[in-house]
Amino acid sequence: MDSDYGIPRELSDIQKLRSTYQPQLPPCLQGTTVRVEFGDATTAEDPSGAHTISRTFPHTYGQPLVHFLRATAKVPDAQIITFHPAIRVGVVFCGRQSPGGHNVIWGLHNALKIHNPNSALVGFLGGSEGLFAQRTLEITDDILATYKNQGGYDLLGRTKDQIRTTEQVNSALAACIALKLDGLVIIGGVTSNTDAAQLAETFAVEKCPTKVVGVPVTLNGDLKNQFVETNVGFDTTCKVNSQLISNVCTDALSAEKYYYFIRLMGRKASHVALECTLQSHPNSVILGEEVSASKLTLFDLTKQICDAVQARADQDKYHGVILLPEGLIESIPEVHALLQEIHGLLRQGVSLDNISSQLTPWASALFEFLPPFIRKQFLLFPESDDSAQLSQIETEKLLAHLVEAEINKRLKEGTYKGKKFNAICHFFGYQARGSLPSKFDCDYAYVLGHICYHILAAGLNGYLATVTNLKNPVNKWRCGAAPIMAMMTVKHYGRGPGASSIGKPALHPAAVDLRGKAYELLRQNATKFLMDDVYRNPGPLQFDGPGADAKPVTLCVEDQDYMGRIKKLQEYLDKVRTIVKPGCSQDVLKAALSAMSSVTDILSVMSSFSNSGQTPS
Amino acid sequence: MDSDYGIPRELSDIQKLRSTYQPQLPPCLQGTTVRVEFGDATTAEDPSGAHTISRTFPHTYGQPLVHFLRATAKVPDAQIITFHPAIRVGVVFCGRQSPGGHNVIWGLHNALKIHNPNSALVGFLGGSEGLFAQRTLEITDDILATYKNQGGYDLLGRTKDQIRTTEQVNSALAACIALKLDGLVIIGGVTSNTDAAQLAETFAVEKCPTKVVGVPVTLNGDLKNQFVETNVGFDTTCKVNSQLISNVCTDALSAEKYYYFIRLMGRKASHVALECTLQSHPNSVILGEEVSASKLTLFDLTKQICDAVQARADQDKYHGVILLPEGLIESIPEVHALLQEIHGLLRQGVSLDNISSQLTPWASALFEFLPPFIRKQFLLFPESDDSAQLSQIETEKLLAHLVEAEINKRLKEGTYKGKKFNAICHFFGYQARGSLPSKFDCDYAYVLGHICYHILAAGLNGYLATVTNLKNPVNKWRCGAAPIMAMMTVKHYGRGPGASSIGKPALHPAAVDLRGKAYELLRQNATKFLMDDVYRNPGPLQFDGPGADAKPVTLCVEDQDYMGRIKKLQEYLDKVRTIVKPGCSQDVLKAALSAMSSVTDILSVMSSFSNSGQTPS
Repeated sequence: MDSDYGIPRELSDIQKLRSTYQPQLPPCLQGTTVRVEFGDATTAEDPSGAHTISRTFPHTYGQPLVHFLRATAKVPDAQIITFHPAIRVGVVFCGRQSPGGHNVIWGLHNALKIHNPNSALVGFLGGSEGLFAQRTLEITDDILATYKNQGGYDLLGRTKDQIRTTEQVNSALAACIALKLDGLVIIGGVTSNTDAAQLAETFAVEKCPTKVVGVPVTLNGDLKNQFVETNVGFDTTCKVNSQLISNVCTDALSAEKYYYFIRLMGRKASHVALECTLQSHPNSVILGEEVSASKLTLFDLTKQICDAVQARADQDKYHGVILLPEGLIESIPEVHALLQEIHGLLRQGVSLDNISSQLTPWASALFEFLPPFIRKQFLLFPESDDSAQLSQIETEKLLAHLVEAEINKRLKEGTYKGKKFNAICHFFGYQARGSLPSKFDCDYAYVLGHICYHILAAGLNGYLATVTNLKNPVNKWRCGAAPIMAMMTVKHYGRGPGASSIGKPALHPAAVDLRGKAYELLRQNATKFLMDDVYRNPGPLQFDGPGADAKPVTLCVEDQDYMGRIKKLQEYLDKVRTIVKPGCSQDVLKAALSAMSSVTDILSVMSSFSNSGQTPS
Repeated sequence: MDSDYGIPRELSDIQKLRSTYQPQLPPCLQGTTVRVEFGDATTAEDPSGAHTISRTFPHTYGQPLVHFLRATAKVPDAQIITFHPAIRVGVVFCGRQSPGGHNVIWGLHNALKIHNPNSALVGFLGGSEGLFAQRTLEITDDILATYKNQGGYDLLGRTKDQIRTTEQVNSALAACIALKLDGLVIIGGVTSNTDAAQLAETFAVEKCPTKVVGVPVTLNGDLKNQFVETNVGFDTTCKVNSQLISNVCTDALSAEKYYYFIRLMGRKASHVALECTLQSHPNSVILGEEVSASKLTLFDLTKQICDAVQARADQDKYHGVILLPEGLIESIPEVHALLQEIHGLLRQGVSLDNISSQLTPWASALFEFLPPFIRKQFLLFPESDDSAQLSQIETEKLLAHLVEAEINKRLKEGTYKGKKFNAICHFFGYQARGSLPSKFDCDYAYVLGHICYHILAAGLNGYLATVTNLKNPVNKWRCGAAPIMAMMTVKHYGRGPGASSIGKPALHPAAVDLRGKAYELLRQNATKFLMDDVYRNPGPLQFDGPGADAKPVTLCVEDQDYMGRIKKLQEYLDKVRTIVKPGCSQDVLKAALSAMSSVTDILSVMSSFSNSGQTPS
């Protein structure tokens, strides 16, 4: 099995050209001297969870934010790390493959070798299972040659997403000790980075010298919070999907006789669907977050789509493109409840044939109402994170089926007078996530790889590598690291088997912020998109020329730079301290006291509003 | 409805850049003076059908081949057309949208205006229905501006594929007369060009002055014969599909746990599947033509795939990518027979619920054996060309289902000892055919548009525009025209409702030539592809740099240049005539007689072998 990994491959011409692309580094990471500035100790975003988080992570909670600065940066307290001993670092791919993952390894390898040619990087073969089994491959320039700027995770492979059970954590610990690792870099999404945090804490408890570092790589784009603006792989996935969606839009406009229902991979949250909508302007998108917030039922959704079909028919339009996130199905309240019941029974070992009869009466009624193909998919065993097997549930077919039935009913009743409704269904996912990574993802991943080295060089444990100000050019990017625990929240309620995670601190997939600017942009254009067919065609993924340097629309419209503002605030506080030094005038001191008293009052009141679950972004 | 058509659109940056791309013209079409050389009168490829074809097309059968040459070409009999009166030409999109279609219109418009600025081009809005209803849009430079080198058919739209019934033909005739058209250009595939030929004959009978010209535009690549090397749209479709297939291959190699079954759009023939295999090297492809030739049953295919899965499991490989053409399902003998029975009953008006009970016992047994989702898809009403609704029948799911069942059986019996078999199914079609066209398709379509003008300027009726020697650079392309009737064959046998076309001359979709070089290339590599995962990633469609100038592999490996050889032969015959002039020596004459007598004997014998239905290519 190992023989597949890390082998040199024959590249196509475009792959060869891509393998020669050298991502830029932001100024702070150029050269071999980097200044590390430690910011304030971090808290958890959700104050009500802070206590639980601090108890769960006694050794790693409350660590400071870290900024990496140019050696020449004029920051008084920053350290310059000048001694770079040879270190051994392990790296593992966790979770679903995302375009750009290979560049994290390349960046890390490059940084290691620049600072000490005797440092070594070992990759674990076959993901977390390779970590447990200590199957490794030493990463060299030769091995990297045909994987630079290339898609997939096939340099090392991946298996399961989990490093969670006691047995798994102990195997990981044993591997790190046996291989004498100074650092372990975990490349993954929400679940994998939660595991990374737990591993960091366990290692600290066990006095294992290996420091654990996480890297935000997930095509879902749902590892998003104050410190993380976007994830490696999200840009590429959205670009490839948008290419295909706009091809379908062109198709719709040419024949004018089909409604295309397209489901997009992206797990629970609807980031991919939102981004693709803003890139390609299909007629409609139904975000899971909207459905959750408005508690829309399957019938509401059917009616909503039928009304749109009818409004378009009134304008003599019989085609359209509708996007659905794969997580939509779990956002529909009555379907979610049904899935929770089914998953509960499955976990109890109830056989498939008996599930229906053991459901509560209302759940059974809903189940029997559904078409057979969906019933079968609902009976699939849930994933390790308690969610349904979203990639297997054909929500697009279910909705197309319900809409067709409803339109036919309206046709009979005479309330719809248009032509026959025809649907074509698609699922876009696997065909995007193996793509050659976009320039943005190549750069972002490579820089994150470099940051991983600096985190380890600074001796930090339980941190996630971060780059902020990403919407600006690479030379404006800010590099840093944030303790993973500072991104955690604690769920206090929930139902069904998923309730097992209640009360445990974890990273949770960030939902699309319905108060954010990206969603606002969608709302402003929704009617125009729906009625006017203003399809936009960003074209196939390019590496040069127009569009090659495009970044996610959602990244660019949001005003994120949280890390920049944290720094700015520090500067203001320092300035006040400098002005109001002992010896300053009484009046100045009085004014400062009065002003700061009012500021602290306002902030105390604001902080006491419990966070409603929406991650600010 | 018309309001959608021909409107200027806002283009994305890459679309804008593409719209500025100016396709090259081969030397023979440059400038305003083109020499027209008439070759020998054409026959039909299938001698046994020639009589029927000549009877069906008394006015248009037997017309000569036409070559367009440089004004300076030294060909004695060629005419130079110097008088270019203003003409009115109509153009209509027929059948499925193929990338590049818009460029035929652009090329035609450009040629018309270059030769006489008073000439006019009118497009029919909404395909053949627009033709019948005389809904037109005058094509101008302004209107073309945002459609140059762009995908889809949305400049004019399309509807049905047919101009066939007496009513339809009469409507088309009335439209051409009412609009005073000198020419009608029909852009389409096999079906549409058969209709174009019929229309040309009818117009000739009715003494309608409108000349009919066909253009080979179909993503299926199945309008292929001595005169036509490939079709507009095929290159783009295969490139976009190959991009997605290689992404899936990368995905397979990263997780190593899924078998991907990918069905490709392309109608009856397997050209798209073959080309995509040669571009992206998936583990396996099952061509409909192979299955037909070997009469493989559903069980044979299942066994074949299971054996491959087992062989790979022996090497500890549990992933793979298998391509299936959408036409495969009809190539499986027992399934074809079942579909024919079902279609017969559907045409008789038997209700869906009663179909199963009215099938012959063996057909009923097969039907009941199939999973419910496939049964439902088999009951769909057949297409206008008598084939099943291939885009709706999920053959990939059927095979994945059967393979899974068989592997589980082998697992129980202990003959398969590997890990669980997991399949993921995809259908790639609609998402490719709306793509921005490749450079090759842009060029090919534009040149064909120019040729349409020259066909009309030469007063020809019932011709298809042709470009040969396509695998060489544009400046080596040979431009010509061939009577559509010369490409026809007559089917003499068949069963089921499809039998209605028996005895009628028509263009038939060319099957993949199992004796051709492209198929040979596949066979040579089949084992390596199957076992060694030599996946090739041609990357996303590019317009510049590596891969941008790539052409279909199947086009490049085949040694086609039929038109070039026809010309060469003419040159040899002329040379003999020049040498053996009256007055030459007795010996020379005797030698010539003897040699030519032997040549004619050999050729007579060879020609009498009835064509076995395989199109030489």
